[in-house]
Amino acid sequence: QLPVGSLQLTLYQYKTCPFCSKVRAFLDYHGLPYEIVEVNPIMRKEIKFSSYRKVPILLANAGSPLQLNDSSVIISAIKTYLVSRRNSLEEIVSFYPPVKTVTEQGKEVLEYENKYWLMLDEKETKRVYPVKEVRVEEMKWRKWADDWLVHLISPNVYRTPKEALASFDYIVREGKFGTLEGLFAKYVGAVAMFFVSKRLKKRHQLRDDVREDLYEAVNKWVKAVGTNRLFMGGNQPNLADLAVYGVLRVMEGLEAFDDMMVHTNIQPWYQRMEEVIEK
Amino acid sequence: QLPVGSLQLTLYQYKTCPFCSKVRAFLDYHGLPYEIVEVNPIMRKEIKFSSYRKVPILLANAGSPLQLNDSSVIISAIKTYLVSRRNSLEEIVSFYPPVKTVTEQGKEVLEYENKYWLMLDEKETKRVYPVKEVRVEEMKWRKWADDWLVHLISPNVYRTPKEALASFDYIVREGKFGTLEGLFAKYVGAVAMFFVSKRLKKRHQLRDDVREDLYEAVNKWVKAVGTNRLFMGGNQPNLADLAVYGVLRVMEGLEAFDDMMVHTNIQPWYQRMEEVIEK
Repeated sequence: QLPVGSLQLTLYQYKTCPFCSKVRAFLDYHGLPYEIVEVNPIMRKEIKFSSYRKVPILLANAGSPLQLNDSSVIISAIKTYLVSRRNSLEEIVSFYPPVKTVTEQGKEVLEYENKYWLMLDEKETKRVYPVKEVRVEEMKWRKWADDWLVHLISPNVYRTPKEALASFDYIVREGKFGTLEGLFAKYVGAVAMFFVSKRLKKRHQLRDDVREDLYEAVNKWVKAVGTNRLFMGGNQPNLADLAVYGVLRVMEGLEAFDDMMVHTNIQPWYQRMEEVIEK
Repeated sequence: QLPVGSLQLTLYQYKTCPFCSKVRAFLDYHGLPYEIVEVNPIMRKEIKFSSYRKVPILLANAGSPLQLNDSSVIISAIKTYLVSRRNSLEEIVSFYPPVKTVTEQGKEVLEYENKYWLMLDEKETKRVYPVKEVRVEEMKWRKWADDWLVHLISPNVYRTPKEALASFDYIVREGKFGTLEGLFAKYVGAVAMFFVSKRLKKRHQLRDDVREDLYEAVNKWVKAVGTNRLFMGGNQPNLADLAVYGVLRVMEGLEAFDDMMVHTNIQPWYQRMEEVIEK
């Protein structure tokens, strides 16, 4: 079923960005090999070829080269391609068109249509989703991971000056920076993000202690998975499991992550995710 | 093909609301009979039964009663049902789940997933969309009608105090108001909306003369339809034609509408729409 060797993938990423981590979790779990190009977040020379200026970008070559933007579009398109070989990857991607739109606040944004929906026919749908409810459940929680869970990361990892410094130390160590750039990024970045994270906290109406919001969100997820299944996807993770795991794991090694492990019920599920992804 | 008598429909609406007009244009064009319940916009008693507090609401009875919310979900779900009888209407509606999400500005909003996408299998898709490009085109312009075109209506019909008064005279005449309510609504509403429309104009970054934005949008639409086809849908309107027509027609009888007819190239297409819908 897997397109061994027929799908050449290159992921342009910042290693510590949650959206990029989501894509890696998805590709790793499905055993798809890919090359990584770590992008320098200051100059972004590596993605100069692209008019879309964000990461992740996935270049996919299944015959002809194709650029996929937006982490959830990448995941939905590749997953559709793996399940259904009726359409070329190019055709599948065309079902997730970018549409320029204007928010209520008058800001112009690019949105991808249908991005949590796999483009399957009836037979394929039955194969992936034995019951219809689980399809909608997966969609809702994927969206929740993108629209809510990610917004808890910055306020938590830059919560105190000390944590902000530790976070940037980690970002600089894992990311692609020149020596001077790295030194600069670490201290200036930590100070800047400490203040930016306060603004984000206000914008997303988080509590004074942002840990509370993180714990609440994580426990809500654990409760949604419930006690009768290993993953939201049942015996195997579905795209919602992979998304939530991908987002949370960018905090690994930081205080926020350790706090989360101690103060929530996430650990058993998180360990199962680690096991099936590393397998 | 049409479910004569098997689909009982009741539309809860404000007659002059563009989203409601869109739904009527769709139902009328497809020859689907429906009852209308005009909602009193002050008390909204007529939709007290619903936790969803906006119009349009469509109650559909295809066996068991079902409530459909959001104009574009209504249109996509019913259209899917007309094309494909594989699924019950209830199942089809479940493919457009409402998802609570938080905007960049921290506002909680309800969004419906996949709302411009018809849930068709490969055969049905070929029947409705002979070429794949037209499916994406239809989706983009439906979204454009909802996210951009509608925002031009209020600033244009409440542009001057005189126009605001004429608009409210029309709203009160067409809508459901008590005698005193109507008198109150007309004068207070006109004054209020005159000022609100200035704020909307600013929010959506419209030009000083909002007519310019209306003309530009309308001409952009006419250009997208082009000269080689009668409608965006070819020889028959597609869902984008119906959406744009539905939105624009709420201005009929008002100065903005007459100005639009004189200063843009919309008239031939608009007349064709009137003809196929009245047929």
